[in-house]
Amino acid sequence: MKAVSNNADYKFRVETCFLPGQFPLYQQDMGIVVVIDILRATSAMVTAFDHGVDRIIPVATIEEARQYIGRPGYIAAAERNGEVVEGFAFGNSPLAFRDADIKGKTIVMTTTNGTKAINLARNARKMVIGAFLNITALTEWLVKQDDNILLLCSGWKDKFNLEDSVFAGAVMDKLLESGKFGVEEDSSIAAKYLYMAAKENYLSILKAAPRRKRLEQLRLFDDVKFCLTPDQSRVIPELKDGVLVRMEN
Amino acid sequence: MKAVSNNADYKFRVETCFLPGQFPLYQQDMGIVVVIDILRATSAMVTAFDHGVDRIIPVATIEEARQYIGRPGYIAAAERNGEVVEGFAFGNSPLAFRDADIKGKTIVMTTTNGTKAINLARNARKMVIGAFLNITALTEWLVKQDDNILLLCSGWKDKFNLEDSVFAGAVMDKLLESGKFGVEEDSSIAAKYLYMAAKENYLSILKAAPRRKRLEQLRLFDDVKFCLTPDQSRVIPELKDGVLVRMEN
Repeated sequence: MKAVSNNADYKFRVETCFLPGQFPLYQQDMGIVVVIDILRATSAMVTAFDHGVDRIIPVATIEEARQYIGRPGYIAAAERNGEVVEGFAFGNSPLAFRDADIKGKTIVMTTTNGTKAINLARNARKMVIGAFLNITALTEWLVKQDDNILLLCSGWKDKFNLEDSVFAGAVMDKLLESGKFGVEEDSSIAAKYLYMAAKENYLSILKAAPRRKRLEQLRLFDDVKFCLTPDQSRVIPELKDGVLVRMEN
Repeated sequence: MKAVSNNADYKFRVETCFLPGQFPLYQQDMGIVVVIDILRATSAMVTAFDHGVDRIIPVATIEEARQYIGRPGYIAAAERNGEVVEGFAFGNSPLAFRDADIKGKTIVMTTTNGTKAINLARNARKMVIGAFLNITALTEWLVKQDDNILLLCSGWKDKFNLEDSVFAGAVMDKLLESGKFGVEEDSSIAAKYLYMAAKENYLSILKAAPRRKRLEQLRLFDDVKFCLTPDQSRVIPELKDGVLVRMEN
């Protein structure tokens, strides 16, 4: 194992938390939280802002989202287990947001994993949304911050997932390069190794048979490919008073 | 990322659980649980059996272990935060067990992470103890079993650790090679990638600065080197009625 090049005299920490359930063990001393749900909540959020949406209100339950169905100016979106919940026109597909008329509207969204992670970390000093779609804009902004950074993976139903961890490793790679940030957690080092193994081909993350089967059943390959294609947007969504808005920078 | 070669027609599953706290999400349908605490509980257990100990009773609390101090035929061992607990002659150092007269005795042991994982999984259909020290004997036995196998990492204070995960990846590598076992969890695939990154030099797992510093402070390098050296024993400890004994095979 080539040693992850840590920085001896780093000023701030950047750490990876693999699971929402581990957040309480990591949050202490961390200032900025980056919430990650590559497939597909945070990818969908970045896409929605990129296509003109004004605000996204993340809610925990389907019932809360349902109250916004048909309300003027609002789009209600709900996903569970990879599928759009019955009665909703939108789930968490970024391509669906890209192709719809959403300019100036407010999305109220609930998803299996991503909005759960957002709600868990809503009291962070600052929370932003990360995805491959905005990775360069995000890391350029992060590296300028004078604060500790926690990369919070949403996982899949409370379990570890590869795409969120590989993405966290990609962000860490950039931040460690700067010399300003260092790591102390084994999970952070592991994330970087997973990124190093995956970086030649992000789609290979999904090569393992069982997940590919699940995605094929749901006919999500176009969405997945889109979510794993970096740098399609310069938008960084941030949470302000419980609502996601486009960061002004 | 080279795809982890999964087996299309596997008969049984082998999965890696990174954390004791995740065990409830993984235990369903798993028959054999391998408890892993490379630094140092399960390494110490294998060493103790290899040097003639009769039984190891894993206990959750220091108080339970303390009752055995000075009792004829018993050795009380307690470790917290990498150090021997005050009043005890033994902690979880495999070298201490190797160098002591323990033949025919019963060890009563409590450790920060390892005995916690054992207690958590004590109702598994079968539980065995894994370490680099007995990896070949263990994997040769595992591959002959007709059952699903869960590799349960003890972690470090409820957080992910690298050495347990790399070891799990090494075991998975062997079991996947057989064609008899397959994986469904992302954590299992990640463990195998971490093993692939580390296998040329297990000591490199500890290259990241913060952990090295901690180990240096505790002067544990000899112990660590010993724990990361494969195939020093053919013993497989197994849990029977709450007590660890040497498997007869």
